Amino acid sequence: MLEDTIAAIATPLGEGGIGIVRISGTESIIIAEKIFRSLKEKDWVKNLNYGLIYGYIVDPFNNSIVDEVLLSVMRAPNSYTRENIVEINCHGGLVPLRKTFELVLNSGARTAEPGEFTKRAFLNGRLDLAQAESVIDVIRAKTSDSLSLAVKQLEGKLSEKISNMQDKLLYLLAHVEAVIDFPEEDIEASTIEKIKAEIKDIIKEINKWIELARAGKIYREGLAVVIAGKPNVGKSSLLNALLKEKRAIVTEIPGTTRDAIEEYINIKGIPVKITDTAGLRETGDTVEKIGVQISKEKIMGADIILYMLDVKNGFTDVDCYVLDEVINRNLIVIINKIDVGSGIEIINNISNKYENLEIVQISALKDIGLDLLEDAIASFVFSGNAAASNEIIISNTRHKSVLKRVVYNLQDVIEGIENAMPLDIVSIDLRNAWETLGEITGSSVTEDIIDKIFKEFCIGK
Amino acid sequence: MLEDTIAAIATPLGEGGIGIVRISGTESIIIAEKIFRSLKEKDWVKNLNYGLIYGYIVDPFNNSIVDEVLLSVMRAPNSYTRENIVEINCHGGLVPLRKTFELVLNSGARTAEPGEFTKRAFLNGRLDLAQAESVIDVIRAKTSDSLSLAVKQLEGKLSEKISNMQDKLLYLLAHVEAVIDFPEEDIEASTIEKIKAEIKDIIKEINKWIELARAGKIYREGLAVVIAGKPNVGKSSLLNALLKEKRAIVTEIPGTTRDAIEEYINIKGIPVKITDTAGLRETGDTVEKIGVQISKEKIMGADIILYMLDVKNGFTDVDCYVLDEVINRNLIVIINKIDVGSGIEIINNISNKYENLEIVQISALKDIGLDLLEDAIASFVFSGNAAASNEIIISNTRHKSVLKRVVYNLQDVIEGIENAMPLDIVSIDLRNAWETLGEITGSSVTEDIIDKIFKEFCIGK
Repeated sequence: MLEDTIAAIATPLGEGGIGIVRISGTESIIIAEKIFRSLKEKDWVKNLNYGLIYGYIVDPFNNSIVDEVLLSVMRAPNSYTRENIVEINCHGGLVPLRKTFELVLNSGARTAEPGEFTKRAFLNGRLDLAQAESVIDVIRAKTSDSLSLAVKQLEGKLSEKISNMQDKLLYLLAHVEAVIDFPEEDIEASTIEKIKAEIKDIIKEINKWIELARAGKIYREGLAVVIAGKPNVGKSSLLNALLKEKRAIVTEIPGTTRDAIEEYINIKGIPVKITDTAGLRETGDTVEKIGVQISKEKIMGADIILYMLDVKNGFTDVDCYVLDEVINRNLIVIINKIDVGSGIEIINNISNKYENLEIVQISALKDIGLDLLEDAIASFVFSGNAAASNEIIISNTRHKSVLKRVVYNLQDVIEGIENAMPLDIVSIDLRNAWETLGEITGSSVTEDIIDKIFKEFCIGK
Repeated sequence: MLEDTIAAIATPLGEGGIGIVRISGTESIIIAEKIFRSLKEKDWVKNLNYGLIYGYIVDPFNNSIVDEVLLSVMRAPNSYTRENIVEINCHGGLVPLRKTFELVLNSGARTAEPGEFTKRAFLNGRLDLAQAESVIDVIRAKTSDSLSLAVKQLEGKLSEKISNMQDKLLYLLAHVEAVIDFPEEDIEASTIEKIKAEIKDIIKEINKWIELARAGKIYREGLAVVIAGKPNVGKSSLLNALLKEKRAIVTEIPGTTRDAIEEYINIKGIPVKITDTAGLRETGDTVEKIGVQISKEKIMGADIILYMLDVKNGFTDVDCYVLDEVINRNLIVIINKIDVGSGIEIINNISNKYENLEIVQISALKDIGLDLLEDAIASFVFSGNAAASNEIIISNTRHKSVLKRVVYNLQDVIEGIENAMPLDIVSIDLRNAWETLGEITGSSVTEDIIDKIFKEFCIGK
């Protein structure tokens, strides 16, 4: 599989100054030679090991010039994939890129699968699996903070952390195996007790990582926030206020599997996808009907629900009905329009019925209290763990589930010790924990998992 | 203006493997130095004149890594603009690109205007104006043939042709001026007659270019074809048949000033934009109302109108009404569904009313006659001038209007000679023709025109 030469258009499709056709594999240079002509340097194939060369892409079948290009040549192992790479910098239009790409394919390359360049970088040992996975997080980063997290992982900070933890486990494993090999009763008991204590510490630490992974996942995938409430309480005004204020940093991230464009708001570095729902109207007599009108799926899929009231419309049965439904969710109650009246009465009414609700008073129109609302949203991400932003945190669901399995393995170790199981068994569980942890960096991982990971990448990376 | 350093994101926005931030100007290297760190080659600023270097973009304010990148360094004059150029090859996502671009701006570059890189290439003498203009044609090329035409212009084939013609004019001008300086009656008369004859030949030739410019413009901008006809005659089937057959080479070209995506069909290398119109329905009694229903603007803007009939619905008053309106336009009448009946009766009816109509019989469903239809469409582009495809032809409206002015200048020369005007005056007209022609390659052109040309470019080119 690593023996053939792959190619793809590596820049986004559309109109731009530059577009790139990327080729990687043993034959890259030979393929480029067939379709590239340099006016000045005839011997580039012999002389150029790493660098740039200017010239033309020429269709070898009729000698017609296809485009004026700049070639980047990077020979193995000094390249992204550690293979020979040639990148053809064409003009950034669809037809010159497609035409050049076609010629590359006709000259012996095959179309790369999504993520195949990065997969090769992994298989050839230039990146470990956690680093390789971060590449797509860098590309899809939604805010500077998301980017920073992904780049740290790309640098190898996460791999370092995992590898340190693996070392700790290996050290403990060596001790257990030493006890197995040289059983001396006195040492055994105290050593094993010490090992148990250390494993408990490790479990505690990994559980902390798992807890922080919630925040990591949000930086990576965004925080889904839904605004609900009766009509005319000011839901759209809030949306606009948040959007307007942040317009400069609002980004359009085209979904990869859907056509729609999702809009993200940057709230304190957190990518927040805010959805407005239709107003909840009292139609007919039964209050139940109203519930149906709520876009239930939207609310069910949300990380945080912003339930909006206003001082004009007050706190009514409709509100109670919805709040009853979502009271156990991450919920912030917003009281809007405090520029035209006091919210105290509403607060009292709500507090009589529900305990410990988070309530924020704002005026979307006059831009009052929006900071407090943003703080409240951001605090859900960290749950008081502000320190997290300086450290590398787990952001990938796969990594989180690996860590959970490591914890199970380690709990088996503890149980084994407590139930006085033979140390051989205990050592197997400990080794399992060590191996499972290695799935994050790919030191131990199956081909299926690797295939699944790179399938989610984009073409050309 | 050429003294500051400009920067832009040079790849299309979206998700991709690679995205490029391009910097051009005296300060490019200094700016890159502020935000780029190479692990291996600390002295790249001193040592690297033309080539690639791998490293990281680092935010100098907090030393955090923004992205892992590949830098292309091209020092003046060996670059696209003939200035120092640094291209930062980032990961192809919105946030890493924007963040890197921000750092470049903060480090001393300013945002480039659309087309400003190419404008500098022109102002610094790397490209002439016709070549510079072709850059955007390469990027926006809609078919391989459009691309081929644009690339020939980029190579300088058009400039060569223009410059040869300018030489001819200069030669004639030298003769006229020689006669002015050394007036000897005998020579004068015969020489001037010869010059007149040669100028007439030149006018003929330039008029041929102008005629072919129609085809050139179509290759460059596409051929607007509208399908009209009563409901259920098979307009959408035809559209689908043409689209389906050509699906592999159908391209999506995002418009630059509008949001809609236009779809082009490649017919014999010609980019054809086919628009389906709503069916013409007989509502109420007055036939006039029907006319209103036609999307008149679409039909008015079309290069070719395909008016569709079918053997089931026949030839009726509605058809007559519309045909009367468009009879003087480029028109092809299509008779569809010839797989279920004969078109002869319709042909006879139409021929009784209209003369010399181009009629094509097809079955969109059974794929009969589509080739003939495509031939008929293509023949409108060449009007029998098939040779055009091997030669460089004028495709740009600006060039065409320059040529028309050259012809006026030359006609003034002829008139001057015929009216026995003083040769001083004749020579001025001849010099005007020579200068006007130079507007195409930019040897004589005002700053206003230059500004206008590059404004139509995309950012980053």
